Amino acid sequence: MSTTEIYSNEVQIEAQQTDRINIGLFGFGCVGQGLYDVLNHSQSLKAEIGKICVKDRSKQRKIESKYFTFERSDVLKNDDHNLIVELIDDADAALEIVGDALLKGKDVVTANKKMLADNFELLYKLQLETGSSLLYEGACAGSIPIIRTLEEYYDNELLKSIRGIINGSSNYILTKMELEGLSYNEALKQAQELGFAESDPQLDVAGFDSKYKLCLLCAHAFGLILKPKDILNVGIQNISSFDINYAKEKNLRIKLLARAEKTGIHFRVYVLPHFIPETGALGTVNYEFNGIEVEGIYSDKQFFAGKGAGSHPTGSAVLSDISAITYDYKYGYKKLKKRDDIDNDIRFVEDDFLIKLYIRYNNRNDLKEFEIESIEEEYSSCENKYIVANVRFSSLRDLPHAHNLFICAVD
Amino acid sequence: MSTTEIYSNEVQIEAQQTDRINIGLFGFGCVGQGLYDVLNHSQSLKAEIGKICVKDRSKQRKIESKYFTFERSDVLKNDDHNLIVELIDDADAALEIVGDALLKGKDVVTANKKMLADNFELLYKLQLETGSSLLYEGACAGSIPIIRTLEEYYDNELLKSIRGIINGSSNYILTKMELEGLSYNEALKQAQELGFAESDPQLDVAGFDSKYKLCLLCAHAFGLILKPKDILNVGIQNISSFDINYAKEKNLRIKLLARAEKTGIHFRVYVLPHFIPETGALGTVNYEFNGIEVEGIYSDKQFFAGKGAGSHPTGSAVLSDISAITYDYKYGYKKLKKRDDIDNDIRFVEDDFLIKLYIRYNNRNDLKEFEIESIEEEYSSCENKYIVANVRFSSLRDLPHAHNLFICAVD
Repeated sequence: MSTTEIYSNEVQIEAQQTDRINIGLFGFGCVGQGLYDVLNHSQSLKAEIGKICVKDRSKQRKIESKYFTFERSDVLKNDDHNLIVELIDDADAALEIVGDALLKGKDVVTANKKMLADNFELLYKLQLETGSSLLYEGACAGSIPIIRTLEEYYDNELLKSIRGIINGSSNYILTKMELEGLSYNEALKQAQELGFAESDPQLDVAGFDSKYKLCLLCAHAFGLILKPKDILNVGIQNISSFDINYAKEKNLRIKLLARAEKTGIHFRVYVLPHFIPETGALGTVNYEFNGIEVEGIYSDKQFFAGKGAGSHPTGSAVLSDISAITYDYKYGYKKLKKRDDIDNDIRFVEDDFLIKLYIRYNNRNDLKEFEIESIEEEYSSCENKYIVANVRFSSLRDLPHAHNLFICAVD
Repeated sequence: MSTTEIYSNEVQIEAQQTDRINIGLFGFGCVGQGLYDVLNHSQSLKAEIGKICVKDRSKQRKIESKYFTFERSDVLKNDDHNLIVELIDDADAALEIVGDALLKGKDVVTANKKMLADNFELLYKLQLETGSSLLYEGACAGSIPIIRTLEEYYDNELLKSIRGIINGSSNYILTKMELEGLSYNEALKQAQELGFAESDPQLDVAGFDSKYKLCLLCAHAFGLILKPKDILNVGIQNISSFDINYAKEKNLRIKLLARAEKTGIHFRVYVLPHFIPETGALGTVNYEFNGIEVEGIYSDKQFFAGKGAGSHPTGSAVLSDISAITYDYKYGYKKLKKRDDIDNDIRFVEDDFLIKLYIRYNNRNDLKEFEIESIEEEYSSCENKYIVANVRFSSLRDLPHAHNLFICAVD
């Protein structure tokens, strides 16, 4: 066959293989409405929303009432729906919906990071057993296609570490404080008004949301299934303008980082505020943007950034999953499948190492709970006191988070 | 079936589906040797190199001579090879090899951007006709997984624009001049010594390499097949420290950008030096790193960065393609398949618009070739003269590049 014999009629035939997708939707909040908008403006995707199950009967909705139902079964048992999209807040209810749908042989798209992180092993095995596809790009870092990139591109790259600003709401607050001089409370209020924050803002500012997403990243980057409860999270809720100024004087910025890095066969995994250089890639990630740095042995540092919160960016990540479903895409979970025994991965997480921390405190007594190896810097005035010290990581586990301490890693 | 009935024996079965890959390799230069290293350190990928076809009989090789042959047919006709990896410099010879291999039903991985860009339509149709897979992540932006991300993730996102620093060598030169005060020639020499530059450095500094890559990006981002000859490329070869200082005074940096953006049904596509803010994402991309900004209507701006040149980063991109081949991955070319008539895409490229340019010149006569609509700034001293002017884009087409002009877009 000569190459000149090839004509484009081939092209037409292949383009028509895609089936029409009819979506059964759970939830019509910020992301659900974003999805609705994005879907309505996508000319090429053959997908439409069927029934939408919502909880609140009294709420005014911006689309016709015929779409809505208050009964789960109206959506789950409707044979017209060949895809379930789950975008509700409640992680327990979400698990029931997603589990049910997978067992019914339906493909599912979700953005519920808490539900995914808390039940990762179960949901992984459910996919293997049922052959259904569960996609969740919208659950991690909004519009950044990080799950699929880790899954599809780095499967044979020896990854060393992953570090990310993956909570848009706390990053918005930090940026507002740093660049615009707002107080913590003013900045938090603005983040809530803009719809960036979770309904319970503690999930964002105390680092829980980052931790759930970090669990998803660990599974796809390293084939490691960790429970959120096993990962340390320290948040930004006690930050003050004193801390912001301390960083500024040193040309540093404070960012809430979720990180996982390989140390031999072990991993160090945690969520902590970090001082980072203002000129590095992560230092340029501002407001509701997210940024993720992936480091491989041969590919060196890769950096990904994009909007991490908000109705349309997350809606477009969900849309991208829906589109992948039309092409029968499933996560390959190649790194997980290579392993024999995945039900006790906490054994790979290192707990006994030194970490250099800036700790601002009110009362010297508060420092007693830290196992401090050495103090490198110490400051004390009437209003503010801090130390920079090398602290045994394991002693951070049981910190009472209510304390008025601000802790920040010094890299 | 209850979810607790699911056991992990399923996991073992699926993990063994991968066939062993035996690679017939063409070329053993910088990228070929990088691939060899990366492949040797990948524990999980079942791939090995069979025969390697090279041109130069006299060259000392760092691996055993039994691997090498000087006859193409020893590699192409060897039935042991189920994958051909093409990493040679010569685009014409590369096309023959890749075309032959595809017609023989073999899958092919290549990093030859010139060959791909010059023959995109042919190679696209050859893949449809033969069913073989042709992957080329290593051909664009080194270690950044941009082709696969555009292909798999943005297929239903309404993309607005793509702007990238996608030539590591010229970015290395610009960074060395800007941050370390080197002259253009000193910086070029260093880039060549480090192996970042193409064997003919004009391909890098005059923007040809960026243009080839831009063609690949246009195909995967917009489903648009453009010929390199139809795209304007202006390079950095005439830059001076005067230009660098001009940018610095304004807190700007000079970067060679390849860009394509949608304007209604048309596109503006070109490679030009640009002044960009030093604090934006692209402004932080230094040395041999590449950076790409993708803007969608709903996902907003996404940013990707990583090493764009060098033996190991490119080798690891090639490895990632080899790994994808083990999972029978093919580019979907979804945006191309949606279109009827792809053989005259130049009609979608806009030529008649105004662009604001900084033009440094020696002789007023040199400006005659530009169709200037208005001049916004004008400077003249004994040594240096420049204007900032709104220029009709179409008049840039026939610029004699040999002229001692430095042209830079002002966004």
